Amino acid sequence: VAEIFGLRLPIISAPMGMVAGGRLAAAVSRAGGLGLIGAGYEGAAWIEREFRHADGTGVGIGFITWDLAASPDRLEAALACRPTAVMLSFGDPSSFVGRIRDSGARLILQVQTLEAAERAAALEPDLIVAQGTEAGGHGGARALLPFLPAVVDRVSPIPVAAAGGISDGRGIVASFALGAAAVLIGTRFYAAEESLAATAAKARIVAGSGDATIRTRIFDIVRRLPWPKAFTGRVLRNAFTERWHGKEDELENELDRENLRYADAVQTGNFGTAAVWAGEGIDLISAVAPAQEIVERLVHETERTMARLWL
Amino acid sequence: VAEIFGLRLPIISAPMGMVAGGRLAAAVSRAGGLGLIGAGYEGAAWIEREFRHADGTGVGIGFITWDLAASPDRLEAALACRPTAVMLSFGDPSSFVGRIRDSGARLILQVQTLEAAERAAALEPDLIVAQGTEAGGHGGARALLPFLPAVVDRVSPIPVAAAGGISDGRGIVASFALGAAAVLIGTRFYAAEESLAATAAKARIVAGSGDATIRTRIFDIVRRLPWPKAFTGRVLRNAFTERWHGKEDELENELDRENLRYADAVQTGNFGTAAVWAGEGIDLISAVAPAQEIVERLVHETERTMARLWL
Repeated sequence: VAEIFGLRLPIISAPMGMVAGGRLAAAVSRAGGLGLIGAGYEGAAWIEREFRHADGTGVGIGFITWDLAASPDRLEAALACRPTAVMLSFGDPSSFVGRIRDSGARLILQVQTLEAAERAAALEPDLIVAQGTEAGGHGGARALLPFLPAVVDRVSPIPVAAAGGISDGRGIVASFALGAAAVLIGTRFYAAEESLAATAAKARIVAGSGDATIRTRIFDIVRRLPWPKAFTGRVLRNAFTERWHGKEDELENELDRENLRYADAVQTGNFGTAAVWAGEGIDLISAVAPAQEIVERLVHETERTMARLWL
Repeated sequence: VAEIFGLRLPIISAPMGMVAGGRLAAAVSRAGGLGLIGAGYEGAAWIEREFRHADGTGVGIGFITWDLAASPDRLEAALACRPTAVMLSFGDPSSFVGRIRDSGARLILQVQTLEAAERAAALEPDLIVAQGTEAGGHGGARALLPFLPAVVDRVSPIPVAAAGGISDGRGIVASFALGAAAVLIGTRFYAAEESLAATAAKARIVAGSGDATIRTRIFDIVRRLPWPKAFTGRVLRNAFTERWHGKEDELENELDRENLRYADAVQTGNFGTAAVWAGEGIDLISAVAPAQEIVERLVHETERTMARLWL
């Protein structure tokens, strides 16, 4: 992976939608990894602005594939910004693959099942990301520790990056042991100073425990987002999950009211209602820090774990 | 762990209820690890028979704590067989701890949440098992890769074993990287020749994919077993899960009929209905083999993975 992407470090920051902006991605790239902007549901203007914030540093961008398919012009806007790589996840990427490759950007495809890994491999991407269910935000049901080596066995020699629940050097070395060529880290960079997440949300990540995260569809329902049912979002439990998780039908019936209440909670930063997307690795996150410092610590922890393993 | 338990290898076979009998446990212990008999819901006669099948080889035994509490005399039957260790999981172990320690057996407590890990640590066991959601059979919701290091951080200096989804040497080295002192392996030994699982069930494990496993309560409902709701069972999907998973209330209503049909399916080995308990690591299991050969292969794979990591 280092050779393919020209990286010093096999560390990629996840394209967390609307949270991973240009400043975060650029900081990770400057520290030796690969930073990815997360387009989320945003349009061309947002994408162009975030690439400007990357200020000429080589960064990539990630899209939610089913959402990109609904307004595919955003891919052209992104490619015009000359991304190092484009990552696609959550949907059928096949119609976008040719255009991305023609642009000169590297192609990264994220998968959540072995079946999807085989379909992705057939498209010959530069990198496949095996995302475990421990990941924050949207994802699938397979846990990384058994899923990752099974993906590696299926798609070899295409390199595989590990994603989901990796928050420190122990998770990085574990991923390498399982066959990963790189790691993709989300939540730890959510708590980076440069991330676009609200300060109060970052504070909840630092204070929270993986015991208190849950996969749920309710935040997609309340936002009227047509996520395929195979993908749920991992969040910190809050009053909203206590009220609605497991009562999805009831929430659908109350949607006119709840949609407005939810939008208001997001607006005012009320995280008793609004989602704080978080992976299970938050037990290992103890402070908000600049992205460069996070990368340096990850490298240090990785070296220390390797040394301990070899004792 | 090697010192505490007098083992050559930090490999423990999981006490899979009614599947891990004395012959399997003894084969694992003779190969250098620690074999555990799985009492499941069985009584004193079954336990005594399985210890006889271990034929004097030092083995331990594992109980389902809430079920043991319902007929605690089984602990005395087990202790009379002089087990090396007693493992308790799924419930409050505190009332059994003193008796186990007095017997001279080592005490192993398995946990599925950080909160439970802290409660277990207060009982000062010889080993805590951090069980990830990828495990076959009953378990919780935390994925091993982020859960294990968080448990290690909380309970240190008590040694921690990793459980869930570990089927080959890559998983073993990953567990060590995450801070484990040992690994507890279930499903790969389910497919051992010596396991008491049905031949047809072992064949399904070998043929199956982790994509096709699911955590569900329906097999506990249909068997009228009062499992606490925090614990679900991971099985291979089959016609029964397609019919009933997500329709638990409906199943409760049909219980008089379905309970009999289910018992019949178990009797006749109809695994379209009967549960095949399986962890997510089954992608990495390609054959039924004698337990000693499985242990030898695990050691070989572990060494190969360590060598690759250090390249």
